[in-house]
Amino acid sequence: MNSNPNTSVAPLRTVDISEIITRLDVHSEMAQVEDYMQSLVASPVMVISEPARHVISAGGKRLRALLVLLAAKLNYYDPPSSVAVASAVELIHAATLVHDDLIDQSPRRRGLATVHSKWFRDAALVGGDYLFALSATAIARSGNIRVLEHLGRAAVRICEGEISLVSHVSPIDQALEAYFFKIAGKTAVLFEEGLQAAGVVSGASESEIEALGRYGHNLGMAFQITDDVLDYVGDPAIIGKPVGGDLRRRQITLPLIYAAADGMSPAMRATINRIDDGATPVEIEQLLAWVQSSMGIERSRQEARHFCQSACDALRAFPRSPIRDALEGIAWLVLDRNK
Amino acid sequence: MNSNPNTSVAPLRTVDISEIITRLDVHSEMAQVEDYMQSLVASPVMVISEPARHVISAGGKRLRALLVLLAAKLNYYDPPSSVAVASAVELIHAATLVHDDLIDQSPRRRGLATVHSKWFRDAALVGGDYLFALSATAIARSGNIRVLEHLGRAAVRICEGEISLVSHVSPIDQALEAYFFKIAGKTAVLFEEGLQAAGVVSGASESEIEALGRYGHNLGMAFQITDDVLDYVGDPAIIGKPVGGDLRRRQITLPLIYAAADGMSPAMRATINRIDDGATPVEIEQLLAWVQSSMGIERSRQEARHFCQSACDALRAFPRSPIRDALEGIAWLVLDRNK
Repeated sequence: MNSNPNTSVAPLRTVDISEIITRLDVHSEMAQVEDYMQSLVASPVMVISEPARHVISAGGKRLRALLVLLAAKLNYYDPPSSVAVASAVELIHAATLVHDDLIDQSPRRRGLATVHSKWFRDAALVGGDYLFALSATAIARSGNIRVLEHLGRAAVRICEGEISLVSHVSPIDQALEAYFFKIAGKTAVLFEEGLQAAGVVSGASESEIEALGRYGHNLGMAFQITDDVLDYVGDPAIIGKPVGGDLRRRQITLPLIYAAADGMSPAMRATINRIDDGATPVEIEQLLAWVQSSMGIERSRQEARHFCQSACDALRAFPRSPIRDALEGIAWLVLDRNK
Repeated sequence: MNSNPNTSVAPLRTVDISEIITRLDVHSEMAQVEDYMQSLVASPVMVISEPARHVISAGGKRLRALLVLLAAKLNYYDPPSSVAVASAVELIHAATLVHDDLIDQSPRRRGLATVHSKWFRDAALVGGDYLFALSATAIARSGNIRVLEHLGRAAVRICEGEISLVSHVSPIDQALEAYFFKIAGKTAVLFEEGLQAAGVVSGASESEIEALGRYGHNLGMAFQITDDVLDYVGDPAIIGKPVGGDLRRRQITLPLIYAAADGMSPAMRATINRIDDGATPVEIEQLLAWVQSSMGIERSRQEARHFCQSACDALRAFPRSPIRDALEGIAWLVLDRNK
């Protein structure tokens, strides 16, 4: 189907996610996702239901749910199964955030106390497991075993991404390989497999499902690289946290890898070599300032733009429509966001 | 079908699990479960694949897998889906053990170092998530969405059981309710839902599936109560750990609840009231000795016998056969085991 250009949503570079939801009139579907997730939290055990409700209510942008719903609308939209897949993806995401915050010992997320800091460590451990278990219920509700194949694979690769390390900045090809492997699992795979699951429940062809996966993977990579850039140069007042958190947790991300590849002083090299053990807080702050003013920031942005373009290219498997335009617009929004 | 009495396996009270495997010739199916689980661990990330292989290789009795395979053989045995369900159940069990050991900070299990002590805390956190994610792959392989409904429900209730507390020994009805709620989730539900899933993939009728669930639930309750009794009066040389571990971790289990219900001295009452905060190690040892010589042990054993009988009663939904006899025999083995 070709869209009427008058109903087309492009160009979307200047709008935000909530405007896309309004333009495409998916408010009620998004609300169904919220309601369904809340309805799943039925445990009589307060120390498990309260953290779960806390995390679900904290919400966030619900970008993943929106993408699943829109992708399902590219073909034959089936409300119950699409809402189920969108909810399952958000629940897996929520579960990983709870465990991620526990690993990083982060006190806050999205301005709210994290589960382990508001309750206690084991509430976060079991609470994350619980959210993951609820996602199984949501997947079962989709009624489609292929959804489980996609989201099960995502869950496996999220674990790999979560625990894998980027331990060196050189040689650069190995550093990039380790970094891309990590973020492909930690972030991109849930977009990739979630969008493929949306294709499955909406009767997409195999080549369309493949294209949705490619869109999701590339969008997810652009999303994480943008996150990693904002961690260096975002406005603390807008991103809601001080810059440099990754580096202070001794995590090597793309801006540092590209900054190092551009050449570094002996002092910076020495700090990077001891980043995991021994680099002092003062040295880390010097490294932070150096990366912020390096070419690593712009090269990382270029890389994100590259992934974003690949995401949009993948959408050509579908005829132009307001939905496809919105998916394209979201890819550029992910890139251009400042928080 | 009625079995030929000559091929019947009963009475089984004197044999063990491995003899049942031999008598019923399910060695190759059990080996398929091992092979399939090992084949799922394909991660290139060593810090995730090594702990996963460590846990899977540690094995244990594989009681859950055996029960699933036997239950599936009560009807129309389909090898791939039955092996998939048996593996999924064992993987969920393994995932919960890894997180359980992390919560309890247990250094060893089945004579081997636990994941968090052999590797590090986050390897156990993410390693448990990984085993749980692999179970999703196994469930997908079963090809049956109802398997996901059953095992997803089990996963939800395991979390509830894991985190819920038994905080008082009186009033006894409330203490029993809290204790039974906890062990029904922590232990029994995986038997209950796993056996129902076995019924689903073998074409059992709804009433047979219900009966398998009842058998599993009651067997699981008997299993956990027996565990809790052995923690008080087992032979340390046989159970492989000192007695009294639960009490030293300040956990209230059935022997203590029944001992208290039988009447207690003011000193014991005072210790129990401060079990969570303040009871000294010396007081805990005195409490331990008191429970060991109390009626709480025998009353707990009676309760386990009760559940065991209910498990066997549930099997009457099926005609007598060597398989049914074996399932009955396993219930009594669970009760009579000394480790």
